[in-house]
Amino acid sequence: MKTPSLVKASLLLGTLLALSSAAAAEVKIYPYSGAHVLAGQKFDLRVEVSGVAAGAEASVMLDGKPVAGLIKTNSAADTVEYTLRGVSLLAGSHTVTVTGAATGQATMIAEAPATVAQAKKVILFIGDGMGWNTVRAAELVAHGYNPDNGMPLGRLEMETGLSGLATVTNSSYDSFLTDSANTASSIATGQKVLVNALSVYPDNTKDSLDNPRIETIAEILKRSKNMGIGLVSTAFGTDATPAAFAAHTRLRGDYSAVADQYFKGSAKPDVLLFGGSNDFISQTVPGSRRKDATNWIDDSQKMGFTFVSSRAELMKANTTKLFGLFNLSNFNSYLDRVQFKDPSVLGDFKDQPYLWDMTQKAVETLDKNPNGFFLMVEGGMIDKFEHPLDWQRGVWDVLEMDKAVAWAKDYQKTHPDTLVLVTADHAHSISTYAGYDHTKGPGNRDAVLVYQDGKFPTYSDKKDVNGIPMVTPTRGLAVGFAGVPDYCETFTARPIYKDPTISDGSGGYAPNPDICKEEGAYFRTGNLPRNTNQGVHSADPVPLFSFGPGAQNFVGMMDQTDIFFAIAKAMGVDATKDAGK
Amino acid sequence: MKTPSLVKASLLLGTLLALSSAAAAEVKIYPYSGAHVLAGQKFDLRVEVSGVAAGAEASVMLDGKPVAGLIKTNSAADTVEYTLRGVSLLAGSHTVTVTGAATGQATMIAEAPATVAQAKKVILFIGDGMGWNTVRAAELVAHGYNPDNGMPLGRLEMETGLSGLATVTNSSYDSFLTDSANTASSIATGQKVLVNALSVYPDNTKDSLDNPRIETIAEILKRSKNMGIGLVSTAFGTDATPAAFAAHTRLRGDYSAVADQYFKGSAKPDVLLFGGSNDFISQTVPGSRRKDATNWIDDSQKMGFTFVSSRAELMKANTTKLFGLFNLSNFNSYLDRVQFKDPSVLGDFKDQPYLWDMTQKAVETLDKNPNGFFLMVEGGMIDKFEHPLDWQRGVWDVLEMDKAVAWAKDYQKTHPDTLVLVTADHAHSISTYAGYDHTKGPGNRDAVLVYQDGKFPTYSDKKDVNGIPMVTPTRGLAVGFAGVPDYCETFTARPIYKDPTISDGSGGYAPNPDICKEEGAYFRTGNLPRNTNQGVHSADPVPLFSFGPGAQNFVGMMDQTDIFFAIAKAMGVDATKDAGK
Repeated sequence: MKTPSLVKASLLLGTLLALSSAAAAEVKIYPYSGAHVLAGQKFDLRVEVSGVAAGAEASVMLDGKPVAGLIKTNSAADTVEYTLRGVSLLAGSHTVTVTGAATGQATMIAEAPATVAQAKKVILFIGDGMGWNTVRAAELVAHGYNPDNGMPLGRLEMETGLSGLATVTNSSYDSFLTDSANTASSIATGQKVLVNALSVYPDNTKDSLDNPRIETIAEILKRSKNMGIGLVSTAFGTDATPAAFAAHTRLRGDYSAVADQYFKGSAKPDVLLFGGSNDFISQTVPGSRRKDATNWIDDSQKMGFTFVSSRAELMKANTTKLFGLFNLSNFNSYLDRVQFKDPSVLGDFKDQPYLWDMTQKAVETLDKNPNGFFLMVEGGMIDKFEHPLDWQRGVWDVLEMDKAVAWAKDYQKTHPDTLVLVTADHAHSISTYAGYDHTKGPGNRDAVLVYQDGKFPTYSDKKDVNGIPMVTPTRGLAVGFAGVPDYCETFTARPIYKDPTISDGSGGYAPNPDICKEEGAYFRTGNLPRNTNQGVHSADPVPLFSFGPGAQNFVGMMDQTDIFFAIAKAMGVDATKDAGK
Repeated sequence: MKTPSLVKASLLLGTLLALSSAAAAEVKIYPYSGAHVLAGQKFDLRVEVSGVAAGAEASVMLDGKPVAGLIKTNSAADTVEYTLRGVSLLAGSHTVTVTGAATGQATMIAEAPATVAQAKKVILFIGDGMGWNTVRAAELVAHGYNPDNGMPLGRLEMETGLSGLATVTNSSYDSFLTDSANTASSIATGQKVLVNALSVYPDNTKDSLDNPRIETIAEILKRSKNMGIGLVSTAFGTDATPAAFAAHTRLRGDYSAVADQYFKGSAKPDVLLFGGSNDFISQTVPGSRRKDATNWIDDSQKMGFTFVSSRAELMKANTTKLFGLFNLSNFNSYLDRVQFKDPSVLGDFKDQPYLWDMTQKAVETLDKNPNGFFLMVEGGMIDKFEHPLDWQRGVWDVLEMDKAVAWAKDYQKTHPDTLVLVTADHAHSISTYAGYDHTKGPGNRDAVLVYQDGKFPTYSDKKDVNGIPMVTPTRGLAVGFAGVPDYCETFTARPIYKDPTISDGSGGYAPNPDICKEEGAYFRTGNLPRNTNQGVHSADPVPLFSFGPGAQNFVGMMDQTDIFFAIAKAMGVDATKDAGK
């Protein structure tokens, strides 16, 4: 994806970024020095000069020539900014030079367009928070070993019949740690962005919606090839992972703006299948998070979408534009939907589709576009249950996603122009460190089985209606988290989810007393700041499994930004071209 | 490596293993049903019939023909056993059938010999306990990110310029969890063995040295190709990882027997470079663990070995047979040798070589053999410091091994018939879950920096004499373990190593009070059994990085036993041939 010598050169030039004419003056240039973009990929060029006298001016040159059309603003008395939206570069190295009130320079590389399309369709699975260790825990639950001879009994579908295997590391523009916004943005745009940012560069204004935007792979494929675009997630619809592909904001919490951009932005997804409706309905409807009367359920249908809100409606849909919301917010976890089935938990949402249903229906819908498609499918609830240390709900959601991957692999076999990718945005600090003897009751440290005592888990002795092991074995896994708040441990899946902590009323968090009074539960002092209410993302690596044509672009060690360029290469993207309408 | 249909067939047959003629009677057959061996690989065939009347007999057939030469024993009144040592099989599926006092059957697959040698030399690095997360922590210390633009500043040598990348999972014959004996045995022999066993199958006798043996890759390469064999480790010399390649015992703690087998066994290593001397010297010498007068330092020299005990002596050595011991037991950690350098810690051992010195000298020595070589180099102390939760000593030992890998990669470039492999035997439950602000003192939970607060670590601001970052940054990593005993946390490297726990006098362990009274140290309740004194191995996956010819055999998801077959393929092993002397 990257020529090493160019990378090195651009990093060297990166050190020049901070040069400025006065001690207090500072120049910031976006794209940042050292950025790689795709030739033709649109971005907003922005120069910010700070620490200068009122009325100061600067001139901005691209490759030695003045940049025409810059909009000048002053966000504070001692700053001046220049912005040009929708810029793109031809392949090669480019330098932005700032002179005048202060001086600065940034060099960026535009990667050459692909000349051959290796694949015409791509299905990108993102298991949110599904690092290598989470995949391994799911494999141990689903398959494990033959107790007669210790031989492995199989692997997950995502691990089997691979065309390519990579390990991916991630980071943010401002930290070696990440959230789901900047990581999905890196996959979507090839850029490092700030924690909590969706496909935008930083800027110095308070408005989170005016930041310099970076065109996403979904927007590029729509613009340059008129491909179908689909976003599917078990999380609420405006959550960071799907949002990064079709929306732009400094703050992932701009939920209403994200909802609006799905329908009014550049990606124009043809398929949107999510958990939550609460950002898509008028503020007058109970549960809405909006501050206006917009109702995208109604408005989308005026735009030609078919709207569905149950599995039965989904499976009946036969349309080219499909919008589905199946809960008020996130999906219930797989375990809650299939194994625990507590009516008080499921409430009105008794017919939520499986992730494999949504995958299948999204592909059927997008397949009506002869230009091919880009489909992102998120296992969104894996992360949401790893955060509160509920590893069982997280891992069983991996097993649900794995069946969606199985469906996609089967589709790939009959549609060999399809590339299937399975990766994660980031990891959690999870590890399977022992077994657990559930016959000895919950919360019993002496029922933790290390080394040979762990023997082989018995999850597969009982399976649910979908062939997925029941969460109630006699001998199971002991799975922990390396970074934890104060909490109470039980080692056992609970039929009704509980938060691990509650507010202590003074900015900190205490273990949830409802958990601490459970049978066997015992207190554990954490190693996260006292104002942390749950587990956090780790810096650990994640897998990238690939199937089909173009998989050769996804091998070895990859930085998460490389995934964007590898997809562009596989899909034969020439972002310098516009397909027209 | 394995034909899926054969695997499936053999697993089905595995379920027949327990069939026996009487309810109480049981038949065990080794190799176990479902085993894969290499055609020509020697192993001891053993049949154990238990729960039968005194004087009972059984007959043992291989592929329908009686097995000649079986030795019959009775290890108890109600058992009868039949053993034949040094058996091998031609390529294909083979069935052992037992009839008589009880009946049983086991089917094993002998993999076809390789017809082409892709490589003539192999350097196999094993980072003990170096799972994916440990590699990532080392990468973050050594390189990290450019704080000006968030772009990655590089990767470890082991991750760069790859010819192949695999992720490896491991297990034991008796558990999904592992120790360093059974994992190294799986790499060495292609078999699943018991926790604590070195390249032997189980048996029903108390004698740990009479178990059915399995020929190792080192023994096969010596026997079939007269190749040079080298074993190098920073751990004590009879520790499990090197021992698995050249010794056979049910109990890895048979240290004296392991030492003896290095010089009297079948692998006959030409290079042995280790930490500890305590199993190689007469019981009369202080520090010896032997119960006899054997002195391998003297005896080895009579066998033609050059013996060295310091870096200076090592670098001067010019020989074809090299034996080096550089400490009484394990090497001191890299941090103790290079950065902390406390005289009370180093004692008499002030001239221990680097792992890269040992790698270089081992290769130079083995290279005098025109038939090529097999060299195993272990970063043995990574695991030994992850166990006591001293992540800094563990991770810096990864950085030391990485420089040895760099040397091997350079060697590979000028000796293109060389395959370099870098993997781990198992993982620990380690994770980099946050940053840490060391300006706020040790043991301070509120100095733990999550998400954007983590910014970028500053390890690279100061480097030691070898260009490795100093362990004393202002902003560092917060690295934890998911499975822990009760211990006290400080978040900070200590200049003198301390055990995390001490015995509580009643079979359990308490946090080490010497740590708990350190500045800021605070107590954390563990989630391991109370009789556990340190962290434990996890079931998490490990990487396998490969460089050079034959690397194509090491891609995708691998079971650890696959590594043996992949090395045999790369080296063109035909184990049915004897090279003669």
